[in-house]
Amino acid sequence: MDGQFSLGFDFGTESVRVLVVRLRDGHIAGQAACAYPHGVIDNTLPVSGAKLPADYALQNARDWLDSAAIASKAATAAAGIAPTDVVGIGVDFTSCTMLPCDSNGAPLHLKPPFDNIPLAWPRLWKHHGAKAETDRINQVARERKEPWLDRYGGSIGLEWFFPKVLETLNHDPLVYEATEVWIEAGDWFVWQLVSGPYPHCNPADIVRSTCQAGYKAMWNAATGYPTPDYFSAVHPRLADVVSRRMPGTLEAPGQRAGRLTARAAKLLGLEEGIPVATAIIDAHAGVPGAGVADESTMVLVLGTSSCHMMNSTVERLAPGIAGVVQDGILPGYFGYETGQASVGDAFGWLAGLLNMSHDQLTARAAQLAPGSGGVLALDWLGGCRTPLMDGRLSGAFVGLTLTTRPEQLYRAMLEATAFGLRWIVETLREAGVPVRRFVASGGLPAKSPLLMQIYADVLGEEIRLAESDQAVALGAAILGRIAADQHVRRHPSLAETIGEMARQRQDLVYRPHPDATEKYKSLYALYRSLADSNGTMARVMREMRERP
Amino acid sequence: MDGQFSLGFDFGTESVRVLVVRLRDGHIAGQAACAYPHGVIDNTLPVSGAKLPADYALQNARDWLDSAAIASKAATAAAGIAPTDVVGIGVDFTSCTMLPCDSNGAPLHLKPPFDNIPLAWPRLWKHHGAKAETDRINQVARERKEPWLDRYGGSIGLEWFFPKVLETLNHDPLVYEATEVWIEAGDWFVWQLVSGPYPHCNPADIVRSTCQAGYKAMWNAATGYPTPDYFSAVHPRLADVVSRRMPGTLEAPGQRAGRLTARAAKLLGLEEGIPVATAIIDAHAGVPGAGVADESTMVLVLGTSSCHMMNSTVERLAPGIAGVVQDGILPGYFGYETGQASVGDAFGWLAGLLNMSHDQLTARAAQLAPGSGGVLALDWLGGCRTPLMDGRLSGAFVGLTLTTRPEQLYRAMLEATAFGLRWIVETLREAGVPVRRFVASGGLPAKSPLLMQIYADVLGEEIRLAESDQAVALGAAILGRIAADQHVRRHPSLAETIGEMARQRQDLVYRPHPDATEKYKSLYALYRSLADSNGTMARVMREMRERP
Repeated sequence: MDGQFSLGFDFGTESVRVLVVRLRDGHIAGQAACAYPHGVIDNTLPVSGAKLPADYALQNARDWLDSAAIASKAATAAAGIAPTDVVGIGVDFTSCTMLPCDSNGAPLHLKPPFDNIPLAWPRLWKHHGAKAETDRINQVARERKEPWLDRYGGSIGLEWFFPKVLETLNHDPLVYEATEVWIEAGDWFVWQLVSGPYPHCNPADIVRSTCQAGYKAMWNAATGYPTPDYFSAVHPRLADVVSRRMPGTLEAPGQRAGRLTARAAKLLGLEEGIPVATAIIDAHAGVPGAGVADESTMVLVLGTSSCHMMNSTVERLAPGIAGVVQDGILPGYFGYETGQASVGDAFGWLAGLLNMSHDQLTARAAQLAPGSGGVLALDWLGGCRTPLMDGRLSGAFVGLTLTTRPEQLYRAMLEATAFGLRWIVETLREAGVPVRRFVASGGLPAKSPLLMQIYADVLGEEIRLAESDQAVALGAAILGRIAADQHVRRHPSLAETIGEMARQRQDLVYRPHPDATEKYKSLYALYRSLADSNGTMARVMREMRERP
Repeated sequence: MDGQFSLGFDFGTESVRVLVVRLRDGHIAGQAACAYPHGVIDNTLPVSGAKLPADYALQNARDWLDSAAIASKAATAAAGIAPTDVVGIGVDFTSCTMLPCDSNGAPLHLKPPFDNIPLAWPRLWKHHGAKAETDRINQVARERKEPWLDRYGGSIGLEWFFPKVLETLNHDPLVYEATEVWIEAGDWFVWQLVSGPYPHCNPADIVRSTCQAGYKAMWNAATGYPTPDYFSAVHPRLADVVSRRMPGTLEAPGQRAGRLTARAAKLLGLEEGIPVATAIIDAHAGVPGAGVADESTMVLVLGTSSCHMMNSTVERLAPGIAGVVQDGILPGYFGYETGQASVGDAFGWLAGLLNMSHDQLTARAAQLAPGSGGVLALDWLGGCRTPLMDGRLSGAFVGLTLTTRPEQLYRAMLEATAFGLRWIVETLREAGVPVRRFVASGGLPAKSPLLMQIYADVLGEEIRLAESDQAVALGAAILGRIAADQHVRRHPSLAETIGEMARQRQDLVYRPHPDATEKYKSLYALYRSLADSNGTMARVMREMRERP
């Protein structure tokens, strides 16, 4: 296996990164990134120059192919490997980034006159144009007591798949009618590799990911998508959306979606026939990428916001979870996704407000004892995801005095995100889902040892760190290898494969200090009483947000 | 009266200021200030150099005489008047600043070995060493259902007179036993003028102010000080504190306490025999100094903290008022004192935290609509005085998002102090005390027109401004004239006298904007629900404050 490599295609918000990873040990032999020429389209529409509404965020699907081609060639060149050394391809993508296309795989927005219609363009995950549609979809689901609603903590999100579909039907019915295939961007890219690229794709070759479908499109293994009856109640013309406009089959991430076509191989500078894995959502790829293959190990992806994911053998419903999906992260498990809307960006906001650097603030905050000298914060600067699922909530500081210093606010905000994490862990445990180990990845752990120690202290648990700082892209590459594995050697276990390619750091483990953990117990109780969703604080926050 | 002047001695925390005021029109003909050589003694004790506890704040009584002498001579010189032109002297002083002395008027701390004992020194109003004693005094009063307790909103304060006396008895019983006269600093200074200076004072000449006694020593006109039974229940050796260690009579501010002795006249560079008015607390002097002589006009003294005072013909008990005292501010009225612990100092803290100037913040905050773009604050940075009387409460911000800017926090804090003021006004009105007009004085009104407009909008009432920026010292001078008046002309009404010497500005009145007032109604309701003293927020604040 020394000469064998897997490629991970990691599609982010601004660019795609390609990793060339050695099968034997996960060594990254080469990598390259390429920004999308049109980036995030949130101001004016290309071609027409038309001004976009403030909550729009679009992309150009052609960018994904072009940038992937450049990054793929550059990465293999950097690794100095031969095209024949690549045995598998994995793909992760932001989600729910989705697009309308025709049955040959061509994005609608590339065909005039659709290039002049904003909702014919791919909508990026953070496109927020479908507020009314999200409300409608939730309202009808609640009225009909749809059984799938509880898998998502009782509420589906503004950024998900069907709100964006319904937005099109409501605002541009002609675009909706012209769409033969509604598809997640990750699934679309995989389709281009195994069947196209467009206009040579065959809709029968579409393999959709159970990850994207499960977390963003209300699909589950037992019952599939919501029923035509439900969709009809939402909007009569939506009744046949799945059967008529969402062709293809569903597979778990890492299951083989197909093999690279000659045309796609040429585009990417690779060999025809390489196995391609079913796609996965970017954050979720961080689970195998952090070397986690077992159940009950929570992977904390800590960045501007935080996403906490875990595989489990039990399926339980818990309030405010972003989703529990069979085969949602790795085949054979129930995948749990939970999240905190504002973590790194809350720290960034505060540092900007105080006009001080993170380094200054951290150095001083580290001198303070648990409790930040009497200041308690609520970390809901961008609303509360798990467990309250309420975007109208906001941040708060309590306990301010005339001697309160900047570092007290900063530490209080670090502690608040730790309390928010503990609440999530307790929510899962109370629902009967064991949470036994913690592995941190993402951008924050390396930047803030103080934050990691506070998390360990507040949880009262050890936290290990993902070895790779490219856990997401590495995860994609691992899935590419899994898709390839049956052909290059006897089928090993998932855990063996992941363990060979990704690990946690051995030199640094954050362990809780018992006295700090003890102090945080009562502080956490105070945080929880402030954070009561039926309490005065939450009511005031909602009313302040909803004022004209 | 053209050649007749009154002197106002205004004893602040760091210095004394003397105003020379023309009787005819209140014109300030000259003024001078002189800092106390020892300032605030809160670090080490002079002479011994002994380290003081953190909550101690002492002064040197000799400083008061020496600085007053310098300022008095400088002020009359600046005014270019003859000593014979001075017809009256008034005195205001911080309170409760108090001291132990002997029966000849000599401060105990000036006599060895007492100079080495911190509690033999004058204690400044903000000396906070008597926490346990305050609790004891309140607890016994509640258990015994002392009738005077309700005059103080149900609780007496840490900075008051008897807590400081009891502190001495508990910690330094020998100092307590050696004290022949416990006295307020304002009353002591008047005693020095009409009977001394020490060691020539006669205890029979002591005239204590009903203002200081009423607001800081649980005295009232109908029943006097608390009974020996009560004091005995607090501490057996305190039983005879009033009869044995607090000689003298009581008069309302402005009533004549006596005439300047030859020795005192020499000290101050004045003529013997000038009438001297009974003292008044500094803030309370701001009522006549703002040109307010009638009932139901609330004088807002806005500075680092705020004190809101009003004369009324009705006596009602209201929660959390600092006191209702007959003859407490002006003779013939019930004087109400209410307060907010942190106003200007909260704005100052915030500007420092944000590292921006008040001008910058104000300019940007003025662009925002009522509601500060969704941010709501609680203004209890130094606890809540009226109406909750709870020093364990603290400040808060609610409604923070990733786009919250410094000026939103700043405006929210301005608005919070306005809501706090409205709460006080409503508390009085609900108790049956009419509040009909508003006059602002102190340092803040001139500095922040935005603050004044917000106050007018939140109250839905006009706010006039005191004409003089020296309203407190001017008020003292007015009281000096009142003490003198019976000798220089037929006795005019109090209102006439005050009206001749102090007024409100005619060129600037803050009037409420009806649309802003309407918007503030619902915001005030939200503030009140956050500020619920039995609510979660208040409970969390108290627990955060009381943590080890």
